[in-house]
Amino acid sequence: MRSSFRHALDRAELIISSGGLGPTDDDRTRQTVAELLGRKLHIDERILQHIKERFQRFRPGRVMPEINARQALVPEGAMILPNPKGTAPGLWLEANGHIVILLPGVPSELQGLFEVEVRPRLARVGGNERLFTRDLRITGLPESEVETRVSPLYALYPNTETTILASPPGIQLHPSVWSSDAAQAEKLLDEIVDRMALALGEHLYSTHGETLEEVVGCVLTENRATIAVAESCTGGLLAERLTNVPGSSIYFLGGIVCYSNDLKTRVVDVPPSMIESKGAVSPEVAMALADGIRRLTGATLGIGVTGIAGPGGGSPEKPVGLVYIGIADERGPRQKDFRFLGDRDRIRLFASQSALDMARRYFLAPSHGRS
Amino acid sequence: MRSSFRHALDRAELIISSGGLGPTDDDRTRQTVAELLGRKLHIDERILQHIKERFQRFRPGRVMPEINARQALVPEGAMILPNPKGTAPGLWLEANGHIVILLPGVPSELQGLFEVEVRPRLARVGGNERLFTRDLRITGLPESEVETRVSPLYALYPNTETTILASPPGIQLHPSVWSSDAAQAEKLLDEIVDRMALALGEHLYSTHGETLEEVVGCVLTENRATIAVAESCTGGLLAERLTNVPGSSIYFLGGIVCYSNDLKTRVVDVPPSMIESKGAVSPEVAMALADGIRRLTGATLGIGVTGIAGPGGGSPEKPVGLVYIGIADERGPRQKDFRFLGDRDRIRLFASQSALDMARRYFLAPSHGRS
Repeated sequence: MRSSFRHALDRAELIISSGGLGPTDDDRTRQTVAELLGRKLHIDERILQHIKERFQRFRPGRVMPEINARQALVPEGAMILPNPKGTAPGLWLEANGHIVILLPGVPSELQGLFEVEVRPRLARVGGNERLFTRDLRITGLPESEVETRVSPLYALYPNTETTILASPPGIQLHPSVWSSDAAQAEKLLDEIVDRMALALGEHLYSTHGETLEEVVGCVLTENRATIAVAESCTGGLLAERLTNVPGSSIYFLGGIVCYSNDLKTRVVDVPPSMIESKGAVSPEVAMALADGIRRLTGATLGIGVTGIAGPGGGSPEKPVGLVYIGIADERGPRQKDFRFLGDRDRIRLFASQSALDMARRYFLAPSHGRS
Repeated sequence: MRSSFRHALDRAELIISSGGLGPTDDDRTRQTVAELLGRKLHIDERILQHIKERFQRFRPGRVMPEINARQALVPEGAMILPNPKGTAPGLWLEANGHIVILLPGVPSELQGLFEVEVRPRLARVGGNERLFTRDLRITGLPESEVETRVSPLYALYPNTETTILASPPGIQLHPSVWSSDAAQAEKLLDEIVDRMALALGEHLYSTHGETLEEVVGCVLTENRATIAVAESCTGGLLAERLTNVPGSSIYFLGGIVCYSNDLKTRVVDVPPSMIESKGAVSPEVAMALADGIRRLTGATLGIGVTGIAGPGGGSPEKPVGLVYIGIADERGPRQKDFRFLGDRDRIRLFASQSALDMARRYFLAPSHGRS
């Protein structure tokens, strides 16, 4: 760790590390950096107090282990960055023209601290120029196809740089520009994003990093519509994604995870004869699930998912990765079939993504049956 | 990137990088490393063929963008590590006493390649000694408490090293030992793990890195028991976790995501008068959900979850983070209440964790009602 920090101090003015601020013996970032910069460590009483209070809230009536106090150690001259989501605060040190920022490793704490405490401070210490960027999200196209569609734009905007990131189940595009003029930078980004949108068509679902489930939530809300799902192979993942959006109870009416045929027939009203003749994994059952959950809940849209997530359960006619997704409105159901490659997790993820995307695209159609 | 690889070559014999093997303009790992090691790049025809076939499977009838062929570039003398889950293969280079391994960045591809292609080869090239390790998973205790309980053991086993990792919603402990004698190392680890298990009690749920949902699946299978869930605030996450285990259809009978009171009463049979008098978030409703889903599906165990995941919906009496979890068997339901801190994601994650843990602990009791 000492060697890595030394190497970083040789190369960079700004060093951000994450992790190693916990209470245990192997958490040594604080000590290592203090030693390297020649700073003494002292206990900060306010942090100690915060740690004690937090411990009491989480574990009322228990005695706080002594080692927790280590997290209150602060190198001389360090600024403390409060951590609302955890025990260990972040630390900001300046020395010999370097800024060294120590952040906790738990992702939610790291992200929270960075956004609230670090990003605004960095904006002030930087030069006149800062980086402006957009976060475009694309689904249903492979990375190479996205690149082929948008790369002709790169030459037209030589001052911008675009990174492309395969982040299953989708692709992200981040056009960015360094500028000292916020208005001009935003205008340039608006322009390039408009052109990218044209090249990507309906595959582009967000331009500011919104998740697909957030976008679905928005279009449902805009259209005063509601949704309910009956899912087999995705096992609750579709409902989980729809409901991880705060406020989703407005438009999400409920879901059934019908692994057994019994639940499909008794709760969602899929005819047993249909399951017998067509199989539980079939276009007909996907549509019956979509229509059944819509009727049961009174939702505007019903989604039904049935498929084979594997690793077992496949056959030559119905291989692992085969998924049927039904969508139903008051005019009745229709369906699409998919063939996803990969393991169980990947198949479930892509199936939930496709189901959400069908819900999103439903509202893109000029007349989606809401007379 | 060049500077980082140079630094790594100065310091280490083994260098593993991930990412930058994709088809797009900003994927430059291959070229950078080839340049640094003075190797020419050539197109490998077999990889190219694999890329073309893969493209046809994913996008039948479409023409493969030219840039995909870049992924078939291989530095002279490199060994190709086939990537069953993606387009870009891994690459293994040896030069001047260094081993440089380039792996793709997509996590599932990286993990798959590492396990199948890299780990076994590394075991052969290493010296006589290798690292033996265990992966203990703990739930329901904070990191400092885990450390306090197990740290007295460290002095007793000076040749082992134990790392501790806070990985919400749980804690992981990795005791490890370098040894040239596999049998002896495993015996030593067995011993230290036994002592750790004693110190951690029922909070320890796995010693070889099994997830909590896998452990629940095992105990259900061992006891020939089945499970079904009715969840409100976790929104499908509990069902999703139970069903992400391959083969879970044996013991998971189904789930209801009952966000609306209507689904609670009509499908799971929660009395409307109970919701009116006690509130949808109450111990009574948690128990009624557990019992209702058990009756509906005929499962051995029913789990019911109701709570306030936030950010909205809290009140002084029923604040955000309050969660009731019911568990029912043929003798009837009981419940526990929880108060989780943090944001919506964290509350949902900890609620699903606690529900799974209640199912696991149900079978730890000497007589769990299965007469």
